[in-house]
Amino acid sequence: MAQLDGAEVAKHSTSDDCWVIVHGKAYDVTEFLPEHPGGMKIILKYAGKDATEEFEPIHPPDTLDKYLDKSKHLGSVDMKTVEKEEKEESPEEKERLQRVQQVPQLDQCYNLMDFEAVARRIMKKTAWGYYSSAADDEITLRENHAAYHRIWFRPRILVDVEKVDFSTTMLGTKVDIPFYVTATALGKLGHPEGEVVLTRAAKKHNVVQMIPTLASCSFDEIMDAAEGDQVQWMQLYVNKDREITRKIVQHAEKRGCKALFITVDAPQLGRREKDMRSKFDDQGTNVQNGQQTDNSQGAARAISSFIDPGLSWKDIPWFKSITKMPIILKGVQRVEDVILAVEAGVQGVVLSNHGGRQLDFARSAVEVLAETMPRLRELGYQDKIEVFVDGGVRRATDIIKALCLGAKGVGIGRPFLYAMSAYGEAGVDRAMQLLRDEMEMNMRLIGCTSVDQLNPSLLDVSSLAHHGTGTPRDYLTKWAYDPLVNPPQRSSKL
Amino acid sequence: MAQLDGAEVAKHSTSDDCWVIVHGKAYDVTEFLPEHPGGMKIILKYAGKDATEEFEPIHPPDTLDKYLDKSKHLGSVDMKTVEKEEKEESPEEKERLQRVQQVPQLDQCYNLMDFEAVARRIMKKTAWGYYSSAADDEITLRENHAAYHRIWFRPRILVDVEKVDFSTTMLGTKVDIPFYVTATALGKLGHPEGEVVLTRAAKKHNVVQMIPTLASCSFDEIMDAAEGDQVQWMQLYVNKDREITRKIVQHAEKRGCKALFITVDAPQLGRREKDMRSKFDDQGTNVQNGQQTDNSQGAARAISSFIDPGLSWKDIPWFKSITKMPIILKGVQRVEDVILAVEAGVQGVVLSNHGGRQLDFARSAVEVLAETMPRLRELGYQDKIEVFVDGGVRRATDIIKALCLGAKGVGIGRPFLYAMSAYGEAGVDRAMQLLRDEMEMNMRLIGCTSVDQLNPSLLDVSSLAHHGTGTPRDYLTKWAYDPLVNPPQRSSKL
Amino acid sequence: MAQLDGAEVAKHSTSDDCWVIVHGKAYDVTEFLPEHPGGMKIILKYAGKDATEEFEPIHPPDTLDKYLDKSKHLGSVDMKTVEKEEKEESPEEKERLQRVQQVPQLDQCYNLMDFEAVARRIMKKTAWGYYSSAADDEITLRENHAAYHRIWFRPRILVDVEKVDFSTTMLGTKVDIPFYVTATALGKLGHPEGEVVLTRAAKKHNVVQMIPTLASCSFDEIMDAAEGDQVQWMQLYVNKDREITRKIVQHAEKRGCKALFITVDAPQLGRREKDMRSKFDDQGTNVQNGQQTDNSQGAARAISSFIDPGLSWKDIPWFKSITKMPIILKGVQRVEDVILAVEAGVQGVVLSNHGGRQLDFARSAVEVLAETMPRLRELGYQDKIEVFVDGGVRRATDIIKALCLGAKGVGIGRPFLYAMSAYGEAGVDRAMQLLRDEMEMNMRLIGCTSVDQLNPSLLDVSSLAHHGTGTPRDYLTKWAYDPLVNPPQRSSKL
Amino acid sequence: MAQLDGAEVAKHSTSDDCWVIVHGKAYDVTEFLPEHPGGMKIILKYAGKDATEEFEPIHPPDTLDKYLDKSKHLGSVDMKTVEKEEKEESPEEKERLQRVQQVPQLDQCYNLMDFEAVARRIMKKTAWGYYSSAADDEITLRENHAAYHRIWFRPRILVDVEKVDFSTTMLGTKVDIPFYVTATALGKLGHPEGEVVLTRAAKKHNVVQMIPTLASCSFDEIMDAAEGDQVQWMQLYVNKDREITRKIVQHAEKRGCKALFITVDAPQLGRREKDMRSKFDDQGTNVQNGQQTDNSQGAARAISSFIDPGLSWKDIPWFKSITKMPIILKGVQRVEDVILAVEAGVQGVVLSNHGGRQLDFARSAVEVLAETMPRLRELGYQDKIEVFVDGGVRRATDIIKALCLGAKGVGIGRPFLYAMSAYGEAGVDRAMQLLRDEMEMNMRLIGCTSVDQLNPSLLDVSSLAHHGTGTPRDYLTKWAYDPLVNPPQRSSKL
Repeated sequence: MAQLDGAEVAKHSTSDDCWVIVHGKAYDVTEFLPEHPGGMKIILKYAGKDATEEFEPIHPPDTLDKYLDKSKHLGSVDMKTVEKEEKEESPEEKERLQRVQQVPQLDQCYNLMDFEAVARRIMKKTAWGYYSSAADDEITLRENHAAYHRIWFRPRILVDVEKVDFSTTMLGTKVDIPFYVTATALGKLGHPEGEVVLTRAAKKHNVVQMIPTLASCSFDEIMDAAEGDQVQWMQLYVNKDREITRKIVQHAEKRGCKALFITVDAPQLGRREKDMRSKFDDQGTNVQNGQQTDNSQGAARAISSFIDPGLSWKDIPWFKSITKMPIILKGVQRVEDVILAVEAGVQGVVLSNHGGRQLDFARSAVEVLAETMPRLRELGYQDKIEVFVDGGVRRATDIIKALCLGAKGVGIGRPFLYAMSAYGEAGVDRAMQLLRDEMEMNMRLIGCTSVDQLNPSLLDVSSLAHHGTGTPRDYLTKWAYDPLVNPPQRSSKL
Repeated sequence: MAQLDGAEVAKHSTSDDCWVIVHGKAYDVTEFLPEHPGGMKIILKYAGKDATEEFEPIHPPDTLDKYLDKSKHLGSVDMKTVEKEEKEESPEEKERLQRVQQVPQLDQCYNLMDFEAVARRIMKKTAWGYYSSAADDEITLRENHAAYHRIWFRPRILVDVEKVDFSTTMLGTKVDIPFYVTATALGKLGHPEGEVVLTRAAKKHNVVQMIPTLASCSFDEIMDAAEGDQVQWMQLYVNKDREITRKIVQHAEKRGCKALFITVDAPQLGRREKDMRSKFDDQGTNVQNGQQTDNSQGAARAISSFIDPGLSWKDIPWFKSITKMPIILKGVQRVEDVILAVEAGVQGVVLSNHGGRQLDFARSAVEVLAETMPRLRELGYQDKIEVFVDGGVRRATDIIKALCLGAKGVGIGRPFLYAMSAYGEAGVDRAMQLLRDEMEMNMRLIGCTSVDQLNPSLLDVSSLAHHGTGTPRDYLTKWAYDPLVNPPQRSSKL
Repeated sequence: MAQLDGAEVAKHSTSDDCWVIVHGKAYDVTEFLPEHPGGMKIILKYAGKDATEEFEPIHPPDTLDKYLDKSKHLGSVDMKTVEKEEKEESPEEKERLQRVQQVPQLDQCYNLMDFEAVARRIMKKTAWGYYSSAADDEITLRENHAAYHRIWFRPRILVDVEKVDFSTTMLGTKVDIPFYVTATALGKLGHPEGEVVLTRAAKKHNVVQMIPTLASCSFDEIMDAAEGDQVQWMQLYVNKDREITRKIVQHAEKRGCKALFITVDAPQLGRREKDMRSKFDDQGTNVQNGQQTDNSQGAARAISSFIDPGLSWKDIPWFKSITKMPIILKGVQRVEDVILAVEAGVQGVVLSNHGGRQLDFARSAVEVLAETMPRLRELGYQDKIEVFVDGGVRRATDIIKALCLGAKGVGIGRPFLYAMSAYGEAGVDRAMQLLRDEMEMNMRLIGCTSVDQLNPSLLDVSSLAHHGTGTPRDYLTKWAYDPLVNPPQRSSKL
Repeated sequence: MAQLDGAEVAKHSTSDDCWVIVHGKAYDVTEFLPEHPGGMKIILKYAGKDATEEFEPIHPPDTLDKYLDKSKHLGSVDMKTVEKEEKEESPEEKERLQRVQQVPQLDQCYNLMDFEAVARRIMKKTAWGYYSSAADDEITLRENHAAYHRIWFRPRILVDVEKVDFSTTMLGTKVDIPFYVTATALGKLGHPEGEVVLTRAAKKHNVVQMIPTLASCSFDEIMDAAEGDQVQWMQLYVNKDREITRKIVQHAEKRGCKALFITVDAPQLGRREKDMRSKFDDQGTNVQNGQQTDNSQGAARAISSFIDPGLSWKDIPWFKSITKMPIILKGVQRVEDVILAVEAGVQGVVLSNHGGRQLDFARSAVEVLAETMPRLRELGYQDKIEVFVDGGVRRATDIIKALCLGAKGVGIGRPFLYAMSAYGEAGVDRAMQLLRDEMEMNMRLIGCTSVDQLNPSLLDVSSLAHHGTGTPRDYLTKWAYDPLVNPPQRSSKL
């Protein structure tokens, strides 16, 4: 088959006749336009042109095969004949590229916050907007870590801590450190290889990776990247079409996934204003004051329209009927629902508020954990379910606090994305190594030599629930407020 | 009748003989001068001149007809003959006009705080001073929103939330979203059309507007702007002359107003220092140090001298005798008075501190609500009265919190004024749409599909009353305090 | 007697032979040098010269007559013959004088903090240092006002507040507003006329002035400045020599003083580092690193060496024996000592920490008040003693809060000094008028028409004692701390 | 023996043949390289060169004699023949040297924080990094002082405080002020003479010095610097080789040490990121992104590899068997372990978190003290053990608070190091004198004339444990967080 040339493709550039090029191949997407979950407009921007750069991080490579009829696959294009768009770099982008040149050396990063600070400097504005944003005023986003700071240690001394072992078991899998890589979407926004970078780092440190539904890599690519007996779990957004869900789940089980984490805190994906704002193009003064323009609602909305807001407790038996994988509910936020989960017969829960990306003023997972475990013990339920937490974990001390309170393990998401975005696999590797170093040190300093010795008496949680006044700052209100001033000096007429 | 010319009018420019032009007509206000509620001085500034620009936002259009004898209406003026005053714009005003040119596009506003930030940049200093100011140190002003930040959610998961309905009923009126546009004064300071802008937006979103006594538009203009079966309520400052009050109330009822909100927190309108300061003209060095000048006390004082500080519980039966509209007390601030209100047989209360504009260190409405509802339930009074709150509502999560605690609805005032001041009706429309979007999202995320499912178990209010240390910053004291320093370096003599 | 000339005086300029000129008269202070409470060094700086400017604010005019033998009074000097020292103004002083030129107009001051802000800009560094400084980290200084911000109102509505009367009675004296001008030292540092400025303003507003032991004016000058039946009280630092104390007290009673306030919180005057630092002269690089120089310990130490640290409860009966004036203990700081005061038979106490100038981390008076009154009521002591508070009162709301809690009145000190320093008597007058305006407004807004209606149910004090985390900022530690940073960018080698 | 010359030494500059010069003598360290606790790399940097400047502060002078076989001591070197390395000063270093020139005069330091601020300006970056750094986010570092700010005074008045005596007894030794100089490592980083400077100052003020295991001076040098009956204690890191420990302890006892403080909070020395970061050399753009370089882990790790992480309660009887000195456990952090200490028969404990340098989120000593003493009293143990605290003590009020709560004395470490680093012995002397001045003042102001009168009723500790929201700021997270913003202005196209 002869290659198409760019001029030919360029002719099809309207909503009635729309071709686009992706990875050197042309596709006729005219009929698909109205169905595109991210909206028609974003495609039309590339009508008749090469859309690869925009397409790449948002869509797994098997997307076009899965969702576009073969008849619309028009064949390969001679890319030399495709006109390159000359994009003049904005001043902001030039400054960013300068910052990329001057990125700190990897071994100047001594903790997980450092990776975030570096990623903030060098990531593209829209990618940073997608990763770092959270719901409304981002109070819960910050509360997640801040809550750990309201827990203090009561360490034991004069314990022989020469040998410290902080390996543990989660859902039957032995892991070297009590964390797992939790599911986060769109890995290629941060790194061209996407989620497989995390797979390789997880293998190296013998921890579990949870594979996201909304990965940039395809599910099979991520499974294929695993080595030997490396364990992976699957995170699931439940599709309105349960047959699609059934296929996905059963495929995952067949490929060897060891657990199914069903997300229950996202009947609709959150409004994330920083993400929205990062998408906005200032179109200058030729747009009239107050005139509405149709701008994107951010990446989150675009990719999540299939999620079923009708998912409910009644669906749990069906899930149990289609898979033998242990089922874990991800996103439980109050003790009453943990009890319901036990009674529904699932194997675990993740106390989580989705990294603060869904409901602002949801409490931190660690606070819900402190509410949950004593109640489970009262009911004799403590061994009937594995309780995980995620959100805000940045230090080994955070992990230790969660384990003292009764968690089986903690999920860590954004910090590894930031490390990957800043330094690739070496960054993720170092991030995990830093946590390992901190774990060893702090297990010793708290006077425990193994994870099963961690218990609530090693903590002072008396201030954990007093968060009213320590609430993270409300920046939008702060910037908007016009503070009172004392009388100004008079102007000098001299 | 022949038109007057400007030169003729200009001859009458003293306190003994004072004419002014308003909207192209001349008036003899000589005898009225001493009775002007805003003081004689402000009129004399325009003696013999065109006062329209200053007059317009402060006075409803029927003011001159109502309060100035027809004999003093001197007829129309040939405005071409009136000398235009050349006002040189101050540097501050030039900067403001530049900011107006560069106002952000409307769809860059993603939340209600954004409108406030934009309005602050582009409103005239005195108008901003009137709208944004509050009592004393503006602690209560800010506490009103901050208090919501001490309430956290305990959301339910795995509830079918595909269909979410957040309509509700207030005082018998079905509304689409559980807020109403509360009464705020002097709408023309923010927009040339004034309060009718809000009327139109309220119609579009099917919410109720409360008409303010101190509107810039006349009461009838605002009623006339309503369409179809659109519901409006009336806010009342009670006049010392009860006959005037009777006429106003009965006129409102006749025009179709559906409820009477009597303001009970303002026997005297507040001292608002930001408002006062915004009025001050720096008169340079020719004024001697310490010499008193008579400057305005701000707009609030000027327009409110008629309000009766003697209003008391004893007046309630009289109100019940003159109208069949439901009576709601606006500005109740402690549970004891809510109980008195039930026993006085009124239909509702608004827990409110007047947007922080009256008594600084009054508690937030939401805190009073949390104190009130359990006590009403103890007394079996919870269904005998509708409880509303206003002040500090900026997010749908704030609305949901208030409703979980037992409010029937929330009033929102300043945010719509700011949206109107920045972008006119389109701004108010978008502000309401944003709240609607947030409501839908957050109803889902909290796991409720209708307003009647909202209840206290969805909240953690344990930190709500711990506001001592989270008190908003005391800026005047902060600026005045001279912080301690460590020893300074010595000056270099090299 | 012939006038001395400057050259003659200038010869006596050593510690063995030291003359100084004060107010145009020469004095031989050679023998007095070692006894000078402020140290020999400060006098020697002016040996043979005119010391008036330095002498004036620190010493009442009768000082030389009282403490220097007549034989050392050398007679008047022909001031034209005295060499004027050409002091080159430092850049800081030039900037200050520029600021004095541009002082805001008085009516731009809308509250008591405004006067402080203005005074800070225009006062001499050393005078500001003396007035504004407090003990150690000045935590208590700021806590005094901050504590009022942890008290919130529960106002009543629908009370007829047309007529509001906030006059009250303190120690038998009817006053128009429930505050008094408390004793503060060295008034001439702020204004050339000193304390009599306060006397005149107090008269105008019909409030009581408390005359300080350490006034710049003499006691009699201040008494003489009173008019008609104006009431004054006396503040007493007790001298080690009780005969001096007896004379002072009995003289005061004879002159018509109506109460004796004995300071009990100052056995030694405080270390006030801002005061010390303001005295320091940078002597440049010719002083070797680490070499001690003898610099002043600040004004407080210099003027207070006579105070008796041995004063104790055992002295109270003696005071009762020498005067019929009511005795009030000023500086009581815990409820146990209020009870002792009742049992010792004194007429009142001032709960006070000396404006934060003595013991840092002493609690605020208003917090001690909230601890004290319920206990007094338990013991049936509430009417046996009048309880006053001072420290941190800046707003009428502060006064109302103290009265609701049971205080008879509040003392206000520094704010009037600042008003006087910035604008003289007109400033103090306006400061009092502002308080009066605020009182009227806020009495109405809280729903009370007279002082006796104020009671604890109008307040929410539940957060008052939670001051741990709202503690004013520790600036010295803050400036000294080196915050952690994320990794820096690499330097560019391009 | 003929002197070596520099050229000869310079030949031995590889890891197979490595000589270095220290204090004018050459040593063959080839075989020692792999055993060097600080790593081989740091020595190789000086292979064939003069290493004195780097060696000096980290190693006591007897190090080479103790640890390097005499056969490797090659004799003295003619230093004139040794090539001096021309180090160009970095811009940062030049600025520092300029700051050293302009150091404030000593008597401008009025409190202990002032010394820290001065030291921060003038110390070498690496030395400051070692002294000032602490674990993880340095939360506990700052909490240590902040905790004292949650304790308020309830002072007594009308007590005769003319004579105040704040001497006390610790472990049988009479001291003039209730603090001791606690052990801190590497004194020569701050001052060329090292720890003996502290010895001399301690003598002058009659307080005890605790000699650190990791001193820059040798143990005997520090003992020798003591005069007369000056008392010293010994701080011990326990060596894995117990024979070494036995020798050290018995030598100390023989030399006259009066107590043995065994450090129990440091099975491994802490990760201190500020220390690590201060060591980092920016190697410019020639190092590829992400490439690992082997940089130092900071001084703490280098010098502490000998410490036994296996030390446990089982070792206590052995210590009791080898010495008659009282044994005190330094670093106890919860009341349960204080009780174990009593039952193990030791003479004392130091409640301490190692200056925040070990486990971040360990509670402050003073909070542990408030938990401990009431429990000891319940058990009748209060007189069986002496309880000391260290960490965060900066003011005499801090000392008084600790003593009121039941401590026998407080340890002060870093403040004296900072005073020494900034001003040498005169600095330490002044620091102690300032504490003495503050003690006298504050004993009077609290109404106590001797240490035994201090008791818990003089304090309000009700807020001490409420530290959740007053937690020191988390700077790394703060810098990394990207705050939300309101919409930006549009760019002007005019």
